Amino acid sequence: MKTYRNTKVLITGGLGFIGSRLAHALVKQGAEVTLVDSLIPQYGGNPFNIEGIRDKVTVNVCDVRDPFAMAYLLMDKDFLFNLAGQTSHIDSMANPQTDLDINAAAQLSILEACRKANSGIKIVFASTRQLYGKPEYLPVDEKHPIRPVDVNGINKLAGEWYHLLYNKVYGIRACALRLTNTYGPGMRVKDARQTFLGIWVRLLLEGKPIKVFGDGLQLRDFNYVDDCVDALLLAGASDAANGKVYNLGSTEVVGLKKLAEVMIELGYGGTFELVPFPPERKAIDIGDYYSDFSLITQELGWQPKVGLREGLQKTMVYYHAHRHHYWDEEA
Amino acid sequence: MKTYRNTKVLITGGLGFIGSRLAHALVKQGAEVTLVDSLIPQYGGNPFNIEGIRDKVTVNVCDVRDPFAMAYLLMDKDFLFNLAGQTSHIDSMANPQTDLDINAAAQLSILEACRKANSGIKIVFASTRQLYGKPEYLPVDEKHPIRPVDVNGINKLAGEWYHLLYNKVYGIRACALRLTNTYGPGMRVKDARQTFLGIWVRLLLEGKPIKVFGDGLQLRDFNYVDDCVDALLLAGASDAANGKVYNLGSTEVVGLKKLAEVMIELGYGGTFELVPFPPERKAIDIGDYYSDFSLITQELGWQPKVGLREGLQKTMVYYHAHRHHYWDEEA
Repeated sequence: MKTYRNTKVLITGGLGFIGSRLAHALVKQGAEVTLVDSLIPQYGGNPFNIEGIRDKVTVNVCDVRDPFAMAYLLMDKDFLFNLAGQTSHIDSMANPQTDLDINAAAQLSILEACRKANSGIKIVFASTRQLYGKPEYLPVDEKHPIRPVDVNGINKLAGEWYHLLYNKVYGIRACALRLTNTYGPGMRVKDARQTFLGIWVRLLLEGKPIKVFGDGLQLRDFNYVDDCVDALLLAGASDAANGKVYNLGSTEVVGLKKLAEVMIELGYGGTFELVPFPPERKAIDIGDYYSDFSLITQELGWQPKVGLREGLQKTMVYYHAHRHHYWDEEA
Repeated sequence: MKTYRNTKVLITGGLGFIGSRLAHALVKQGAEVTLVDSLIPQYGGNPFNIEGIRDKVTVNVCDVRDPFAMAYLLMDKDFLFNLAGQTSHIDSMANPQTDLDINAAAQLSILEACRKANSGIKIVFASTRQLYGKPEYLPVDEKHPIRPVDVNGINKLAGEWYHLLYNKVYGIRACALRLTNTYGPGMRVKDARQTFLGIWVRLLLEGKPIKVFGDGLQLRDFNYVDDCVDALLLAGASDAANGKVYNLGSTEVVGLKKLAEVMIELGYGGTFELVPFPPERKAIDIGDYYSDFSLITQELGWQPKVGLREGLQKTMVYYHAHRHHYWDEEA
């Protein structure tokens, strides 16, 4: 893709899972990449995620809640991939104001900074399928009602809609991708704070049993991180995307028990057990979910390319090799 | 209604248009009423609105953005009528962070205070038809897609959904009414900051022409303030309302040009003129709107009782008598 060659790109959450993988892709395409990350220990940032491109990117450690830093960093950029967020649903209930500050207020201040000093920027915002809540029908398309089940969902929705509003009212080109479960090298595996798949990887590699909640029949779709990065790049490159929201997703829909079985078959050993839902998880469980992503296929030509087994294999290979960069064996 | 007798009631925005009228009704029903109002000059609060019940209510001047004051005031209340809000759509675009602080962040902190110290409280939240944006179909029922057209709409939505979420997850009884255009004694008439009907009243009484934007054929529904107060009281009294959202509305649907004609016919003189939309208004204009309010009729037995002409007449009589409490003739 020639779109990004010699352009200035800012990625918030740039040391995080998806942001860092996107940085790798953009460096390869000849972009001048700046990564913003707060490196809050509980969140997704990990400097090891940019191993191999450390000297080819600019790392700026700061928080998206810092309006002055963000205004400065945004001033001369051609693209903003706006991926920073508080992603823990449990945390959003325990500390709702923090979630609001990051997922809503900081987004608004980023957009205000663009409006005032760089209205020519193109923004791609990483949103989430969590906005749909418990599906009314499957697969879930972009017309599905919005029903967030937690504070995080409400704030992410506000953050997403600010982007669409600034596109509409001020012509600041912006679009949003509603990501489904994304997995792959670079995700937080220390615990379940970013994705349950993270802790599954760690437990498998430690030879401990995976816990599958409930009957394990809940259906999910998964995207390998490189497919997600492809979608971000396509959305950034296309003016047809401006003002739009697109679901990501996969045609491989799988139950969580089956997923655990597949991961165990990959040859790193391990077992799983079915355990009852913890009450705070049950309260926000959404049952089955998988998306209809035909809109982004039609409009931007995106399709996931990496099969689930292949993606999981790559993931296990990565963490088998680099586990000491992702968790402390003593902890 | 016996529900409110000897109960402790807090009204945010209590010196404002609807809050003060609600206070009158609650005092009459024997409630012990505390009014919170920031008295920010640009907003709706006006001490004259509680003329006649001044010594029967407690007035606490503070801002809903003050979490300590709010936590203290909420501690011992049986009911919260949560009416305070930033309502100017124009302001929400000019100062989006302020709008977020009042309409979203403060709401979250009010709910957190209830969760921590008074989870037995019943809350009625004043929401707005603005959440629906430009209608896809008419009349607009509660299932209509949510499409806010400005920062205010996005933040009001977040504020509304926090209430429903806290009802669902924590069992804090809360419901929301989506108000349509409400008018009557006590509304801000100094300018168009609260409702365009306000400035119309002032202009008529000053013998100046009313400005109707566009062709004047835009349809709207209107509720007289006492009907709105009835709905708030019914929603507060009914546990069937918990976790629900209800539209208010009217069967009298009228074009704005026609409305201007009716107001002029009331006998206070005046004229109107059709003028082109100011650009910042046009950007957020929603075309025709009127609601389907059958849900609240079925579930809570609410129906508007005051006809448009009768309500407008009462309104003009009130401002004719009390104009000097609502605007400075020199300004």
